[in-house]
Amino acid sequence: MLRVVVLGAAAGGGVPQWNCGCPVCQTARLDDPNLRSTQASIAISADSEHWFLINASPDLRQQLIATPQLHPKSGQLRHSPIAGVILTNSEVDAVAGLLSMREGWPFTIYAHPRVLSILKANSIFNVLSEKHVRRQPIAIDQPFEPTLPDGSPSGFEILPFAVAGKGAWYLEGKEHPGGADGAGDTLGLRITDKADGTTLYFVAACAEVTDDLKARLKGASLVFFDGTVWRDDELIAAGLGNKTGQAMGHIAMSGEQGAIAALAGLGIGRKFFLHINNSNPVLLRDSVEWQTAERAGWQIPADGTEVTL
Amino acid sequence: MLRVVVLGAAAGGGVPQWNCGCPVCQTARLDDPNLRSTQASIAISADSEHWFLINASPDLRQQLIATPQLHPKSGQLRHSPIAGVILTNSEVDAVAGLLSMREGWPFTIYAHPRVLSILKANSIFNVLSEKHVRRQPIAIDQPFEPTLPDGSPSGFEILPFAVAGKGAWYLEGKEHPGGADGAGDTLGLRITDKADGTTLYFVAACAEVTDDLKARLKGASLVFFDGTVWRDDELIAAGLGNKTGQAMGHIAMSGEQGAIAALAGLGIGRKFFLHINNSNPVLLRDSVEWQTAERAGWQIPADGTEVTL
Repeated sequence: MLRVVVLGAAAGGGVPQWNCGCPVCQTARLDDPNLRSTQASIAISADSEHWFLINASPDLRQQLIATPQLHPKSGQLRHSPIAGVILTNSEVDAVAGLLSMREGWPFTIYAHPRVLSILKANSIFNVLSEKHVRRQPIAIDQPFEPTLPDGSPSGFEILPFAVAGKGAWYLEGKEHPGGADGAGDTLGLRITDKADGTTLYFVAACAEVTDDLKARLKGASLVFFDGTVWRDDELIAAGLGNKTGQAMGHIAMSGEQGAIAALAGLGIGRKFFLHINNSNPVLLRDSVEWQTAERAGWQIPADGTEVTL
Repeated sequence: MLRVVVLGAAAGGGVPQWNCGCPVCQTARLDDPNLRSTQASIAISADSEHWFLINASPDLRQQLIATPQLHPKSGQLRHSPIAGVILTNSEVDAVAGLLSMREGWPFTIYAHPRVLSILKANSIFNVLSEKHVRRQPIAIDQPFEPTLPDGSPSGFEILPFAVAGKGAWYLEGKEHPGGADGAGDTLGLRITDKADGTTLYFVAACAEVTDDLKARLKGASLVFFDGTVWRDDELIAAGLGNKTGQAMGHIAMSGEQGAIAALAGLGIGRKFFLHINNSNPVLLRDSVEWQTAERAGWQIPADGTEVTL
């Protein structure tokens, strides 16, 4: 049995975003705390005792306080149920939470060598001392089983695969410490319960649904998918920015080429959007966009939502 | 008139700390949200419209949501009252919040060249593009007046001065990008209202109260002072760590050489402890330690506390 907790569902900046006065952010800030959402990350466990994070968002400290499943075990002075963190890219909203995991608890970071090269090149991540925190390279199309602190198997297998995306924003136009080949910058993950073969997918950043990706996701029990924008040009149209979703490496939810259409009819058990930007009207319950997504079988998860597979 | 808001009063890790099961953290996590405290930072303003942060903690996003004074102005799509951030050191708990200030709002970072050298050497801080976010070096014993977005004066003058402290933990044993001379690693700040000369001090990390420091603080209207530990060996005694306060660059509150004794009788108007570690029993209202601090005229500020000078 796999347990999954959504720690946060929002894109970089969260909802509300610190400097944003759009209707969604203003409502979340002032009138409706239920609209608030922290930055995207999930936690998974096969034994309900040891948990693994998929990405570590800047909101991690707050997320851990709000999530009883991730509290230290009662009666222990120092403890965390977190045994590892799997990183799917190196954007601030995926890695900055590592800085809140200092204080000597042992765990393992699993990431592509390109992402590890960035952590290594940024000395601030040395707060996670090599003595306690192991950094384990993972490779595209090579399955691995994360391990518990005592070295025993976690009970689930992870297959990282390449998806269309972009490198970290903060390295745009700069030299990447991992070299010029961008393969590995953006990963999707297939996570399989070794006991019963149940499969979930985590694809929180994705610029295009290819035939290959469709074939992978077909029949999955659960899919978390990139829900950054509803329309490709929505940031520009709302006066909130000058980039399209595509330019940021994200497919739109709507439209003929959008995620909802592309992932229809694949027999997926449950579909959750994740990494939802504050500009996306799907966040407003009962909006036309929210209704459209719901009717197509998609859920917009609240922080703390737990799914058992 | 200077307005000061305490955004957070806790030391690195906050209260509760993610992997800590000590009585204070457990109570804060499970039973008493009033005991919770985010990581130390204050905001100051001379005109009630433009605000400057002293340090940017990893909890900044959450702190900004909780602080109405720092919300975007109503009716503007993109806005923040924050005009600048003054950094007093380069520890994670003082700088990681900068990563939550992306999204194109213009402001100025004021910091010693040693701290700026670390930001420059860590590419992740490039999320704050040079186009929007100016990095302004400040020097020990050289007063400066931060400026508003239009270049006009902020209304207060800041004098940075050196205090006994340590370099960033994550660079221990590594080469510092700013060179081997540690001067500038830990700053105290004197902040003076240019209209009426009222003076406050911010000294959130300090290993020793020297005669020079006493002479500076004498007669100040308000002092924020390093309150990391009550006793120098408290982390070791509680089984929570293997470092003394001194080894971490922090003076204890108690004892003959402690901050309470050292700063007594200086005619300081108001005294607030800041950067209080979760191991410090002063956090427990009505504890002997809390009573001792209160009787000596010290306050343990709750997040959100505002002081007007």
